[in-house]
Amino acid sequence: MAKNLKRRSLRRNLFHRPPPGSSPGTVIPPLNAAPTTLKLLAYSPDEVFGAEHGDLPQVKKLLDSYQVTWISVVGLQDVELIQKFCTQMGFHRLTVEDIINQNERPKVEHYDNYSYISVHVPKHDGRSESEMISILIGDHFVVSFQNTLVDYLEAIRNRIQKKVGQIRFKNCEYLCYAIIDAVIDMYFPIAEHYAQLLDVAEEDIIHGLKPVAVLEIYNMRSRINYFHRILWSHKELINQLMRDPESPMSEEICVYLRDCFDHTIQILDFLDNLKDNSKTLIDLHLSLQSHRSNEIIKFLTIITATFIPMTFVTGLYGMNFHQSSPWNMPELSWTYGYPFALILMACAASSLWLYFYKQNWFSISPATKRELEQEKDKG
Amino acid sequence: MAKNLKRRSLRRNLFHRPPPGSSPGTVIPPLNAAPTTLKLLAYSPDEVFGAEHGDLPQVKKLLDSYQVTWISVVGLQDVELIQKFCTQMGFHRLTVEDIINQNERPKVEHYDNYSYISVHVPKHDGRSESEMISILIGDHFVVSFQNTLVDYLEAIRNRIQKKVGQIRFKNCEYLCYAIIDAVIDMYFPIAEHYAQLLDVAEEDIIHGLKPVAVLEIYNMRSRINYFHRILWSHKELINQLMRDPESPMSEEICVYLRDCFDHTIQILDFLDNLKDNSKTLIDLHLSLQSHRSNEIIKFLTIITATFIPMTFVTGLYGMNFHQSSPWNMPELSWTYGYPFALILMACAASSLWLYFYKQNWFSISPATKRELEQEKDKG
Amino acid sequence: MAKNLKRRSLRRNLFHRPPPGSSPGTVIPPLNAAPTTLKLLAYSPDEVFGAEHGDLPQVKKLLDSYQVTWISVVGLQDVELIQKFCTQMGFHRLTVEDIINQNERPKVEHYDNYSYISVHVPKHDGRSESEMISILIGDHFVVSFQNTLVDYLEAIRNRIQKKVGQIRFKNCEYLCYAIIDAVIDMYFPIAEHYAQLLDVAEEDIIHGLKPVAVLEIYNMRSRINYFHRILWSHKELINQLMRDPESPMSEEICVYLRDCFDHTIQILDFLDNLKDNSKTLIDLHLSLQSHRSNEIIKFLTIITATFIPMTFVTGLYGMNFHQSSPWNMPELSWTYGYPFALILMACAASSLWLYFYKQNWFSISPATKRELEQEKDKG
Amino acid sequence: MAKNLKRRSLRRNLFHRPPPGSSPGTVIPPLNAAPTTLKLLAYSPDEVFGAEHGDLPQVKKLLDSYQVTWISVVGLQDVELIQKFCTQMGFHRLTVEDIINQNERPKVEHYDNYSYISVHVPKHDGRSESEMISILIGDHFVVSFQNTLVDYLEAIRNRIQKKVGQIRFKNCEYLCYAIIDAVIDMYFPIAEHYAQLLDVAEEDIIHGLKPVAVLEIYNMRSRINYFHRILWSHKELINQLMRDPESPMSEEICVYLRDCFDHTIQILDFLDNLKDNSKTLIDLHLSLQSHRSNEIIKFLTIITATFIPMTFVTGLYGMNFHQSSPWNMPELSWTYGYPFALILMACAASSLWLYFYKQNWFSISPATKRELEQEKDKG
Amino acid sequence: MAKNLKRRSLRRNLFHRPPPGSSPGTVIPPLNAAPTTLKLLAYSPDEVFGAEHGDLPQVKKLLDSYQVTWISVVGLQDVELIQKFCTQMGFHRLTVEDIINQNERPKVEHYDNYSYISVHVPKHDGRSESEMISILIGDHFVVSFQNTLVDYLEAIRNRIQKKVGQIRFKNCEYLCYAIIDAVIDMYFPIAEHYAQLLDVAEEDIIHGLKPVAVLEIYNMRSRINYFHRILWSHKELINQLMRDPESPMSEEICVYLRDCFDHTIQILDFLDNLKDNSKTLIDLHLSLQSHRSNEIIKFLTIITATFIPMTFVTGLYGMNFHQSSPWNMPELSWTYGYPFALILMACAASSLWLYFYKQNWFSISPATKRELEQEKDKG
Repeated sequence: MAKNLKRRSLRRNLFHRPPPGSSPGTVIPPLNAAPTTLKLLAYSPDEVFGAEHGDLPQVKKLLDSYQVTWISVVGLQDVELIQKFCTQMGFHRLTVEDIINQNERPKVEHYDNYSYISVHVPKHDGRSESEMISILIGDHFVVSFQNTLVDYLEAIRNRIQKKVGQIRFKNCEYLCYAIIDAVIDMYFPIAEHYAQLLDVAEEDIIHGLKPVAVLEIYNMRSRINYFHRILWSHKELINQLMRDPESPMSEEICVYLRDCFDHTIQILDFLDNLKDNSKTLIDLHLSLQSHRSNEIIKFLTIITATFIPMTFVTGLYGMNFHQSSPWNMPELSWTYGYPFALILMACAASSLWLYFYKQNWFSISPATKRELEQEKDKG
Repeated sequence: MAKNLKRRSLRRNLFHRPPPGSSPGTVIPPLNAAPTTLKLLAYSPDEVFGAEHGDLPQVKKLLDSYQVTWISVVGLQDVELIQKFCTQMGFHRLTVEDIINQNERPKVEHYDNYSYISVHVPKHDGRSESEMISILIGDHFVVSFQNTLVDYLEAIRNRIQKKVGQIRFKNCEYLCYAIIDAVIDMYFPIAEHYAQLLDVAEEDIIHGLKPVAVLEIYNMRSRINYFHRILWSHKELINQLMRDPESPMSEEICVYLRDCFDHTIQILDFLDNLKDNSKTLIDLHLSLQSHRSNEIIKFLTIITATFIPMTFVTGLYGMNFHQSSPWNMPELSWTYGYPFALILMACAASSLWLYFYKQNWFSISPATKRELEQEKDKG
Repeated sequence: MAKNLKRRSLRRNLFHRPPPGSSPGTVIPPLNAAPTTLKLLAYSPDEVFGAEHGDLPQVKKLLDSYQVTWISVVGLQDVELIQKFCTQMGFHRLTVEDIINQNERPKVEHYDNYSYISVHVPKHDGRSESEMISILIGDHFVVSFQNTLVDYLEAIRNRIQKKVGQIRFKNCEYLCYAIIDAVIDMYFPIAEHYAQLLDVAEEDIIHGLKPVAVLEIYNMRSRINYFHRILWSHKELINQLMRDPESPMSEEICVYLRDCFDHTIQILDFLDNLKDNSKTLIDLHLSLQSHRSNEIIKFLTIITATFIPMTFVTGLYGMNFHQSSPWNMPELSWTYGYPFALILMACAASSLWLYFYKQNWFSISPATKRELEQEKDKG
Repeated sequence: MAKNLKRRSLRRNLFHRPPPGSSPGTVIPPLNAAPTTLKLLAYSPDEVFGAEHGDLPQVKKLLDSYQVTWISVVGLQDVELIQKFCTQMGFHRLTVEDIINQNERPKVEHYDNYSYISVHVPKHDGRSESEMISILIGDHFVVSFQNTLVDYLEAIRNRIQKKVGQIRFKNCEYLCYAIIDAVIDMYFPIAEHYAQLLDVAEEDIIHGLKPVAVLEIYNMRSRINYFHRILWSHKELINQLMRDPESPMSEEICVYLRDCFDHTIQILDFLDNLKDNSKTLIDLHLSLQSHRSNEIIKFLTIITATFIPMTFVTGLYGMNFHQSSPWNMPELSWTYGYPFALILMACAASSLWLYFYKQNWFSISPATKRELEQEKDKG
Repeated sequence: MAKNLKRRSLRRNLFHRPPPGSSPGTVIPPLNAAPTTLKLLAYSPDEVFGAEHGDLPQVKKLLDSYQVTWISVVGLQDVELIQKFCTQMGFHRLTVEDIINQNERPKVEHYDNYSYISVHVPKHDGRSESEMISILIGDHFVVSFQNTLVDYLEAIRNRIQKKVGQIRFKNCEYLCYAIIDAVIDMYFPIAEHYAQLLDVAEEDIIHGLKPVAVLEIYNMRSRINYFHRILWSHKELINQLMRDPESPMSEEICVYLRDCFDHTIQILDFLDNLKDNSKTLIDLHLSLQSHRSNEIIKFLTIITATFIPMTFVTGLYGMNFHQSSPWNMPELSWTYGYPFALILMACAASSLWLYFYKQNWFSISPATKRELEQEKDKG
């Protein structure tokens, strides 16, 4: 229930939108919006200027004086401020709609004086959902919109301020690439996390020591599918940035994007693998379930079939026919009547056990114990 | 039965057509056709004229004097009037056929002086079926044909009359875009509705409190498939409007259509998700069903296997062998014969229970209770 | 068996062919060939000439004097006549092979002075198989080959003779379009027929009143697949006629073909739907089968588990231990021994029933009755 | 076991190759290679020359004097002779490798003065495997390499020698087409063979008279898949021959190849159908298996549930409570005690049978008998 | 457990990477890196020079004096040396990242003065995982990076030194082709290995002699999938080398690459086949499991149904009704009472056996024994 409520809250953003028939560009602040801050960072190879809480006039000044200005808008609560800022920067009103209304799909759109790119950062807070980051890239500026702070983007900020690597010597496109690259790299730990979860689930299923929660595997599978789908869109996005003639990315940056593209494909391949594995786990679980069902029925059959004929014999000699007639159960008055009856029963039981033995019913369950041993032998 | 009848009535429109071999362009009024009304709305940036019950001569006049005339034909009963109107507007007779015979697939077709676009509005009346709207767009007019009134299109009419947003300043293409955008947006609540239904079904399956109606999930899945399919066609349609060189849509409108295209893809992605979920639900249901079957058989086996050997012992000492022979059941005359028999039975039963315990048969059903608890722990 | 024999006879046409390594163009009259007749119909806007049993010289004369001559060859028995006729018309020998050997796939082929089109008419005679019609279109003639008379093509003949619609004023291409359109329209009733059959099967499965024949659903599914496949080829064919630069169809006819193309897609969509439904029905059937199996096992378990402990108690007090020892079943001599035994049994039974009740085993089968009621409530 | 050994021997050819890192063009004679013979056949419209055991100098002479020389190399044992011959003809060493190492996939490759085409002949010897034929076509020669004689290619040789049809008047390309056409046509009987096998298996499954070998259906399916896959490659090959600008085939031959292409598609369609059928058969088998399981459990339940309560009653009155107490089973001393007990049992049994009747458990198995009858009624 | 640990260690390389947000081109030596050695081999048609432990200045000299210099870097431990070497050769820093960070996907990338190609060698050490080899090809050099020595590449080295085949007379592209060809050929034994494993598993499943480890088949399937996926990427890579206009491969080498491409497709086809087979095996296993379940239940039913009515009869005559009343079990005092009871039981049992016989329950299990025999008959 708790989970479902959570899911609903996440969906609420998708369905938290103006009613059909509204004017295009109508925006509604998202439900979980954080307060808005403008973080500024402007740099040229030799100079750097950073401000944690910038304002609009400051932005204007920086745009004129530095080679690259990175305006990072964190928190989407103050819709008016964002709209004002966007108007000042000359962004289309549909762009503003895209920034504020959380879109489920990464995309790139080219306008006259800027390009709009949206990417999704996977979140590490256990919900495994993603958060959209909008990146707008112009000739001398990069504007990023995000609702919450992302540590790994702060790492880029540090590289710029501490002049680590080449980033200070490069232009806006390189900064944009660096952000996208960091976002893609954030999918590596997510993939690793699910790989470990599946390993644990596989051990549980094979060893059968702990009851296995099928539902959990189904949930994992649907999460892995989600990440695969969203990463696939990122792949398309990077491809578009590299190939599209309208793309703002120069030849030089494309070499770097190709590298980023390769990383995306690596994670996609790995997620493909995980999808396969989760499917296999479910199949395996069903197969073992059916196997266990067989084992139980076999046990029931052995027990029942052993005792039923024996019980019949006891019933036979428990009948109350008058002993006066010599036809009525003469065995009862035999000296060795009781041993005779016991031997009769033993014969019935052992002939059935012989049948079971021939049918291989006493073999140890291959699907669990044997495989365990094989694992050990090979390991 | 009721549902099947309903379905048949919906299908009847598809099969309510002239016999094979008839002349092309032969039309038959649809079965559930409503009376025909012409709603007129003509506007320039400064002027607006609206009429709830217009007539043909009025249409002619409006077309000459306003920048945009929106003729909205509601109800398809009066086939003759529609044909007359179409002739006056210069529409091809195949277009008339397309308007009146309900087509199952959205499409766009370009003629010399107008373009024909058909879209589908999802209906909220519980039947979850869609209704076709035909839009014809020329240089100075937009004609829409629909059988019943749709509230959200009325919202556009209001925006025009009350001069809300930019719509009054734009041309026919923008009006056409506005209608398509409103129609696409109508799929959001539908998707939300099914998401909620699936959530409820999932809870029912996992908690197992209420017997789950498999059939309902199958029905939901087929509905979701239906909406996915029809929305996919809308995606193609919008794409065609944007890319086709014959398309009446200008560059400026294409920016808006791209936005509308994105919405379509968002809903499609979400419906894809729902399709996945419904499939998972069915798989989960089957898996739990098989699990429950296992549990029942296990219970049967435990009960049977416990009592059968004990009953055998009771049968043994219920036999009537003559006590005269010392070989015939001497236990019966032992002082502690009865306690001995009871201990024998207890041994048989407890050794079996030990076996069951080693086989983990007494563990609580993992597929239901345990998962519930896990849910709670995590939530 | 009867059905299989039928199928074999239908297949026989496919395998009724010259041995591998024969000369190309070798023909063998089909097995079920009907006697050959030439039906002639020649017309200009003002004149019309029809003959039920034409001959070759007559054909020559008509070709020279009328704008459109439709030579309809009915029955493929007289291979020699057909070959002679084809030679007179200047058709390629591979064309003759295509006409006489029944091809399983609609196709269009362009030759120097004519185009060869083959379409398939679905048959209404319960076998649900199709029959090929070959259409050859030249500048002033349309030749159609078919083995049996098709009513709906006669409807076109009537329209021409009675001057209904525009067909008399149009050229050969329009006639060719009219034939193809009639053939496509013949798939509507077929689709409707299967929709009804599936409805009936669904009711049978859900209500469970009548035992359901799985095999029949499998058969339906394979038929629907067949029609989908063949109609898909027709779609490709019409598309090729519209787009191929070699196609004999003019711009004007393409507008009509587009209409016909739309019909094809409508039926394909509907058949897709039916395919989905038939798959769902089979899944549903399996799910209900497994559900019923569960119900039966549950019943068995309740009965067995109720009586087995009670029977054990009766066995217990049926033992023959000597009453001389006070340890040997003192209950037997108690005054209230029998009531005590009865209460013991009642306790055992009722504690088990309490367990069953807690496990919800007494709830009504949800998969059948409950859903029925829900259906009724909603209907 | 026998089959597996066979399979391994077939695979051995695939894995019978030089080790990785060897020079390209290294050849190893195939394992089952037959002795090599050169069959020559040279012809012009008026002349024809044939030799069953030709030699290399003869080949040279024929190439210069006839319009078409067909050198048919049968048997691949004498690798040296083949290499010598290929060098004389000017073939690339990779071509030699392709000829001798059996390739699993039909292909066409164009070299400067010849084209290399490899096709696969299905074998009729029960193993259902194919044999590769390499065809090399130059301006005046066709060279074919095959390991064993194929009857249907001999048919072409006969047509040439007896001047049947047009083949004598045509060039190398036509001969090449004739060979490919004969090879494709050899797939018709294979498809027919599997159609018949599936029919038999279907009857066995439905009528249930004979136990059905699932494994056999799985084997058939994998064979049909194999033929589908290899034929699909042939389709691609023919398409490439028709469309590739490098292809040696002229316009005129393309008309014939189109016919051959159609045949390929017909068989592919039919094999698609068979694949569907085999899948349906397996599904049907599983469904019937589960149905039979249900029937058996139902029977067990009816028997058990009928007798268990009755047996309980007999146990009840078999208890040995002292009759001295009036509370201890007074029924035993009633005059009508026994009839009373019998009636009690009859009531228990009949109430249960009423329940079974209401649950429709006595209806005849629908999945077998009923369907049989329906079949008969319809047939 | 052991296996999972292994898997984790293999994955560790994928996740052993700089944190998101690091500078591009940051490298970390792989976990299992071996010590770095430079193996040099330079040759012209007439000269050859080889060194097992070369150094950087030597490389420079060789590059100037020989036509082809093959620098083989074995072991990736000494990251600094590799970076220094790459800087000297003028390689891009992203190339260095690609070489050291093990990439999961073969790829080709073209830079100004060299091309980067990475391929994967399957490993024979039981883990069945692959190892990446990076190949850099320039005008006069081929550089290969690999972590461990690969025997088959040593075979190429030998061919060069011993002047076997044409390799000494060819240029860098041919050497590059030779390496790729050797790598592709290494997949043949892998495919053969899995084919044999599947054969063994199939025998085990069909004959049912040994309990079958399902998990093992699932593992095999996932391995086969892995090899299929990675080989598919190789296919794409070779295709790109042949078709890409930027590719360094000349026309002449493309003929060889086409041969290599064919080999790749052959193995892919074969792996496709194996994938099919493994899927069939799992299906077959499930089908036989369900069949065995049926057999067990049938046996249980036969035993239970035989003895339950007989036991009921014995219970009946074990009741203790007072013989004083003539209504109370008069059979007990009949002279032939006991034989009568025995005959009653025999009748009950034999009527049930007749039913079983009519239901064909005594037939031998078709899924195991019969098929075995059929196999033998056919073999």
